[in-house]
Amino acid sequence: MSERPATGTHNGSGTGTTARRRGRPPRTESADTRDRILTAARDEFSERGYEKTSVRGIAKTAGVDSALVHHYFGTKEQVFEAAITQAFGPALQAPKAVEEGPLDGVGERLARFFFGVWENPATRTPLLAIVRSAVTNETAAAVFRRIVATQVLRRIAGRLDLPDGELRAELAAAQLVGTAMLRYVIKVEPLASADAEQIIARLAPVVQGHLTGP
Amino acid sequence: MSERPATGTHNGSGTGTTARRRGRPPRTESADTRDRILTAARDEFSERGYEKTSVRGIAKTAGVDSALVHHYFGTKEQVFEAAITQAFGPALQAPKAVEEGPLDGVGERLARFFFGVWENPATRTPLLAIVRSAVTNETAAAVFRRIVATQVLRRIAGRLDLPDGELRAELAAAQLVGTAMLRYVIKVEPLASADAEQIIARLAPVVQGHLTGP
Repeated sequence: MSERPATGTHNGSGTGTTARRRGRPPRTESADTRDRILTAARDEFSERGYEKTSVRGIAKTAGVDSALVHHYFGTKEQVFEAAITQAFGPALQAPKAVEEGPLDGVGERLARFFFGVWENPATRTPLLAIVRSAVTNETAAAVFRRIVATQVLRRIAGRLDLPDGELRAELAAAQLVGTAMLRYVIKVEPLASADAEQIIARLAPVVQGHLTGP
Repeated sequence: MSERPATGTHNGSGTGTTARRRGRPPRTESADTRDRILTAARDEFSERGYEKTSVRGIAKTAGVDSALVHHYFGTKEQVFEAAITQAFGPALQAPKAVEEGPLDGVGERLARFFFGVWENPATRTPLLAIVRSAVTNETAAAVFRRIVATQVLRRIAGRLDLPDGELRAELAAAQLVGTAMLRYVIKVEPLASADAEQIIARLAPVVQGHLTGP
């Protein structure tokens, strides 16, 4: 991953207004600052919820001026979108797991990819923070919906090339997302402590069935 | 439903400290007050989140004295548990859908029951409020987990009578819960607007497979 989807500047589904700034500082310096702002944003959104988070509060936590946050990202909604895109970075690679290989084994590849992301605390923690914001606020849900729909679900559906491809991709995603909810958020046993390989083995045929079944 | 699971006084999985109060007021009067407190509690927990909700705030919203809230329900955690049990009342009937009939059609009965509850705004709204609290707070998640595990999942597993019955029930629940998340919370299309019968038709064999498949 040499190019991180962290800055929101090359986010194809974004609102576009933060993209393609001219004359921005050289990558190394600005990337650090942007990362720091986005990490602060994630923490603020997660702790306070979307509504109670302000650009000023994010700036304070990141130790920068509010103007710099606006300069890099724009409005609060755009900061949120960039923070989601960063937190979602690893998960946004899901379509690759679908595209790289035959449709035959797609269920297992997707389930394995999904739990690879969720089993790793470094990728799970930011993901959880964003999911929490999206579940509790309508604006946050809308941003989340747009990113998931355009960057994950639609791409998977495109690979399927079936008239009901999007619905299939969504029902497959529902099985995976629901399992993540019960395992990592609600932590219901025995699912929470079950071996990840056992879960992948059980879900692979279900995901496969949703995507390519009759 | 002549006996409502709203008061926490006959909740087998509860902490038990609020149960079996002696000398409480006659049913009709007290039931009204208790309902009002629980509805206020649901609104407060949903709007403010678990942490920022206080028994005093709930009492104020319900138009009663804090002491009365403590009298009926006990601690904040116990009020939350009672509110969940009330909001969850309809969903807690899920095991009946499993128990009443042959295992053969259990996938369809359960999927139909589940979407019956979620499609009805009167039962969906309180459910959503509680799910939001449970996703954003660890104490709330623990209460939610205990109720779902003991009153829904374990009973469904009991009917299956298989060594991995609980894991099966949880993976089936994950498919349904994940679909509800994407359809009613994140509202991703085409799933959000799809006909409920179409979704039931697609999920029934998946749920059946989880519960009784090889």
